[in-house]
Amino acid sequence: MDAQRSVRNGETNGISATAGPEGHHFDANLTSQVIGATGPKANPRLASILPNLTRHLHDFMRESEITSQELMAAFDLLAWAGRMTDDKRHEVLLVGDVFGLEPLADDITYTLAADRSTIPTVLGPFWRANAPLRSMGDTIVFGIESGDHTYMHGRIVDAQTGGPINNAELDIWETAPNGKYEQQDPDQIDMNLRGRFRTGEDGSYNLYCLRPTTYAIPQDGPAGKLLQLLDRHPMRPAHIHCIVTAAGYKRLTTELFDRRDKHVYDDAVFAVKEDLIVDFVPKVGDPKAHFDLEYNFKLARQTS
Amino acid sequence: MDAQRSVRNGETNGISATAGPEGHHFDANLTSQVIGATGPKANPRLASILPNLTRHLHDFMRESEITSQELMAAFDLLAWAGRMTDDKRHEVLLVGDVFGLEPLADDITYTLAADRSTIPTVLGPFWRANAPLRSMGDTIVFGIESGDHTYMHGRIVDAQTGGPINNAELDIWETAPNGKYEQQDPDQIDMNLRGRFRTGEDGSYNLYCLRPTTYAIPQDGPAGKLLQLLDRHPMRPAHIHCIVTAAGYKRLTTELFDRRDKHVYDDAVFAVKEDLIVDFVPKVGDPKAHFDLEYNFKLARQTS
Repeated sequence: MDAQRSVRNGETNGISATAGPEGHHFDANLTSQVIGATGPKANPRLASILPNLTRHLHDFMRESEITSQELMAAFDLLAWAGRMTDDKRHEVLLVGDVFGLEPLADDITYTLAADRSTIPTVLGPFWRANAPLRSMGDTIVFGIESGDHTYMHGRIVDAQTGGPINNAELDIWETAPNGKYEQQDPDQIDMNLRGRFRTGEDGSYNLYCLRPTTYAIPQDGPAGKLLQLLDRHPMRPAHIHCIVTAAGYKRLTTELFDRRDKHVYDDAVFAVKEDLIVDFVPKVGDPKAHFDLEYNFKLARQTS
Repeated sequence: MDAQRSVRNGETNGISATAGPEGHHFDANLTSQVIGATGPKANPRLASILPNLTRHLHDFMRESEITSQELMAAFDLLAWAGRMTDDKRHEVLLVGDVFGLEPLADDITYTLAADRSTIPTVLGPFWRANAPLRSMGDTIVFGIESGDHTYMHGRIVDAQTGGPINNAELDIWETAPNGKYEQQDPDQIDMNLRGRFRTGEDGSYNLYCLRPTTYAIPQDGPAGKLLQLLDRHPMRPAHIHCIVTAAGYKRLTTELFDRRDKHVYDDAVFAVKEDLIVDFVPKVGDPKAHFDLEYNFKLARQTS
């Protein structure tokens, strides 16, 4: 405690203090107190990352001279995000996406795995568990006559062998042409534009969906507030969300992006990867679809 | 996007990539994308701290190789904290306290102000607005016969001149001897052990309260979960919370700590400052109090 007082008075006495941009000296002793408080029976992974996390958070606060009032504003914003988060919308995740945290974690996870699966990208806040299980060839579109109806098809294969995966599940979801997911839109039926499809022995899938629509991420919460304060646009390039799972394989969470979308290289949440940009090809001879989308998903085997 | 792929394949081509501890190369381009997205009409303060915040968060994630699953666990923990946060308990703030963020911000704020006021410390999650306004000499203790009843008194003065402050308000709150604040304890009346007192021209105050009790921070939420995972104790040294306000002066949020408490140099949330450690002196001749506590609060004038 005496060390803290000395630092505060500018008499560092050999105590390591961090200087702010104006040369102010703040309490560096606090960082080692927090790091040193971890006990011997701590969770090993949490104990291993805590020192680095604490140092980065404290260094950021000292370097940017974050005041109590500013910290409280950040806490209030996170509390607001937490209160908005439920099984229909993960607003905390969306706040993280404003800072690119989710795509970065995806990149780290993918790089560490080094398993040549389809590249993952962000889950986003609108996935819902237990979407209806549908039959191959079914549509996920209900009550929408307009829109670019699309025949989507392809195979789900083993990333190593290229062989088909039997009983793989493709869980897809997308917005309506008005840019809204069904849970945001009282005019859509429950679970509209969502569906789960299971492959047979040939690993193939086919279904009807919509060519997706560019849309703004929700602006009625803290993520929208942050974008506004940062003078950033809220638009996401048009995309179809996919989660692909199969017994013995790692879960793949990804999105397919429409190459012709004007935001395809300017995504509000930084989720686009080149390998996930696809072409919607005009389709003739199918009264149920204007476009054709072929995409093959590669799953990596579970290791442990 | 091509740059991202190159980085992922280890062909950096002059793109700055951050190596993890095992020499993995992760997408460093993402960091500049996030930083570069800020628009020209952004809030100046947020725009000025965003690059540093983004770099620290991203560097932490790359250096500690945070996976998607781990990031999601962190988001879920924050959402849990947000859902628990209401006007009776600020659990997000308590999660921040596990990492010492609040005392650090207090130190930064105090150092920058350089105004010789009483040193501030953490607000904690249990302050409530609109505690009852009481008369000088009143007690804040109701329905508690046991406990070390204390006569607390002193002056609220101008930090520069030392002169008394008229119509200053002291808002204090503390736990019962069972270690619980009234909102945590159905056996206490609403607003027990809370009160607001306003000074007269001489700046003095006096009231009856309890010598405080050491207690554990709540362990039914994410902050408690983190302490458990880090194998840390949840104890706070006994303290009385105070907020002191007066027209024309900066708000002071602080705590007074009992020197004899065994956790006084081992606070679960790192909030103790030497200048806030006080002595409870045995008191004779007052049938209403066993101890005497004298403390003078110094307020700094508002600058702007």
